[in-house]
Amino acid sequence: MLIRPKAGILDPQGEAVQTSLEALGFAVSEARVGRLVELEIATDDDARAIAEVERMCAELLANPLIESFEIVRDSR
Amino acid sequence: MLIRPKAGILDPQGEAVQTSLEALGFAVSEARVGRLVELEIATDDDARAIAEVERMCAELLANPLIESFEIVRDSR
Repeated sequence: MLIRPKAGILDPQGEAVQTSLEALGFAVSEARVGRLVELEIATDDDARAIAEVERMCAELLANPLIESFEIVRDSR
Repeated sequence: MLIRPKAGILDPQGEAVQTSLEALGFAVSEARVGRLVELEIATDDDARAIAEVERMCAELLANPLIESFEIVRDSR
């Protein structure tokens, strides 16, 4: 899943990335830093697995006050 | 871009996520934690912008010894 700082929430990592890129001469109008969490789950029931991952995000992986999450399925 | 710990590289954040999810009763066979960096770049030349982002990754955003990166284009 992709976990992003919500719009309007201060993102000091993103600010540091933007400042550093500009110092290196790159033109970037905005930078935001989030997290990528990749899970392997053995399942026969996709819908149930996705519901489980939503619970994992809400209970442990994302902070709903300041972060939003997006679940991306990769059926390898 | 998506920045992931390379295969075989110790990923203590991923191990902590896996242990915590198992403690909450979730069945997860592997967890890896990486970073999501989203940049806004004004450009008329997609190919050039992607080449720039590759340089940003190699020079600042990813550690090529232990991380791989994947550039994903989102033309909003």
